[in-house]
Amino acid sequence: MEKMGILGPRGTHSEAAAVKLNEILNEKFELVIFKEIFEALNAVEEKKVDAAFVPVENSLEGSINITLDTLAHSDSLIVSRELVYPVHNFLMAREFINFLSVKKIFSHSQPISQCRNYLQKNFPTAEINSVSSTARAAEIVAKSEIEEGFAAICSERAGNLNNLKTLAKEIQDNNSNCTRFLEVRCRQKNFDIFKMNGEKNLIICQIDGSKPGALYEVLGEFTRRNVNMTRIESRPARTKLGEYIFFFDLEVDSDKKFLFESVEAVSRKSIWLKNLGIFPVIRA
Amino acid sequence: MEKMGILGPRGTHSEAAAVKLNEILNEKFELVIFKEIFEALNAVEEKKVDAAFVPVENSLEGSINITLDTLAHSDSLIVSRELVYPVHNFLMAREFINFLSVKKIFSHSQPISQCRNYLQKNFPTAEINSVSSTARAAEIVAKSEIEEGFAAICSERAGNLNNLKTLAKEIQDNNSNCTRFLEVRCRQKNFDIFKMNGEKNLIICQIDGSKPGALYEVLGEFTRRNVNMTRIESRPARTKLGEYIFFFDLEVDSDKKFLFESVEAVSRKSIWLKNLGIFPVIRA
Repeated sequence: MEKMGILGPRGTHSEAAAVKLNEILNEKFELVIFKEIFEALNAVEEKKVDAAFVPVENSLEGSINITLDTLAHSDSLIVSRELVYPVHNFLMAREFINFLSVKKIFSHSQPISQCRNYLQKNFPTAEINSVSSTARAAEIVAKSEIEEGFAAICSERAGNLNNLKTLAKEIQDNNSNCTRFLEVRCRQKNFDIFKMNGEKNLIICQIDGSKPGALYEVLGEFTRRNVNMTRIESRPARTKLGEYIFFFDLEVDSDKKFLFESVEAVSRKSIWLKNLGIFPVIRA
Repeated sequence: MEKMGILGPRGTHSEAAAVKLNEILNEKFELVIFKEIFEALNAVEEKKVDAAFVPVENSLEGSINITLDTLAHSDSLIVSRELVYPVHNFLMAREFINFLSVKKIFSHSQPISQCRNYLQKNFPTAEINSVSSTARAAEIVAKSEIEEGFAAICSERAGNLNNLKTLAKEIQDNNSNCTRFLEVRCRQKNFDIFKMNGEKNLIICQIDGSKPGALYEVLGEFTRRNVNMTRIESRPARTKLGEYIFFFDLEVDSDKKFLFESVEAVSRKSIWLKNLGIFPVIRA
């Protein structure tokens, strides 16, 4: 059975999504829990697991920076699948306490942001604490005294694992709240990305930011060949302020000819370019 | 004396940067402390302060999402100045304890990320805790028992305010680590942005993501007129996955003619466009 690294502890949205992927694909893999996203990805490079399954973007909160940065700075990771997973945030506590009794709310920073308007409206005076994961938040609440008024924003699964009661369901500010997860594997040496199959291609490149119009020229290579870019994201190159790495999600055309040509052309216009893989997108 | 809202408590990098701005401009303003960045920005809209001074981007960690999102979703905020401020992260504790005695490290999530490699190398087993600000981290450490082995990543100022001792200086992974801060004010009705002076223009727009090549066409409006774009950033439109808002930093040309024309043209190609202001960039 393959080993797949995910962000733990048990009950995170990552675990719930991985279990869902398992069901959809009808493949069995053993989940290996890591404390941080980058540790799960490093374990792939070190061959301690066969794959990692990590969040890369949320529809409300945007990119998961640590995932993008780790992918950008690795030389051996490729993406083998994407899962689009709807997020359900629950507010849970030890007992069915009144909203007015909630004094401290614990969660991961992403769900806190996803529920920002809800929290401002319903809990304007509660102290909001960001901890390492939603599952950790549920644990903290489970260990608290009822009179402390602790509550967690977490998956229903994390709450149930900790015997918490539901104070409110689906508290995210927007009901189309989805998270994209990537299954990441280690690439073989000299592996040909263009032999992979799927509907999406993820490439990363650094463009000379001091050259005006450089990004425009790069996008032109896609537009000219009708290669549809569904997403562009920038991250600091970590060299100096004002230098960026760009992430492009590209749609794969039927014979990959135009995709291949445009990626080659962009590569010539970039300081460096990495092709992170062609992969299928699965919707949960 | 003008009131300026910043992220508190006393001793955050935001406070240190605001004090620096004060020195450079030789203007006096009263600092008003807020618990969250969005609260400082909301206070500007509600006329409780004259301006807010908030971080918008770090050279290692990228955008401060809450700042971008609050600017994007407000109808009255404009940017009046930018400060580029070098960040100095210190590791501080109650006493000069040995690295091996450090069991828990507290800081804000941004400095934790800025020092990611340093922490992995020097404190692989320490528990890393993210709290609401670096100043709060210093407070927690100041209140701890020495044998608990707590340390904070914070500004030297925050450490000194809490009588902490320096275990290590300048622990950020990259010495060109800078943070960009924006001074944000409320715009008058019918105020003409193009009457503002400065070297930079920040615009925000939503482009129809379902139209292939839409972003390319928008960038073409700048490139065609030699308007230099120094930064592009995308954030989720918070409507559904795959829809984005774009932030463009543009260089201002001498008579603003080409800037004005390109912004007008982009406005016609966008679902909506907001001009956040023309402003000077000050280097600390």
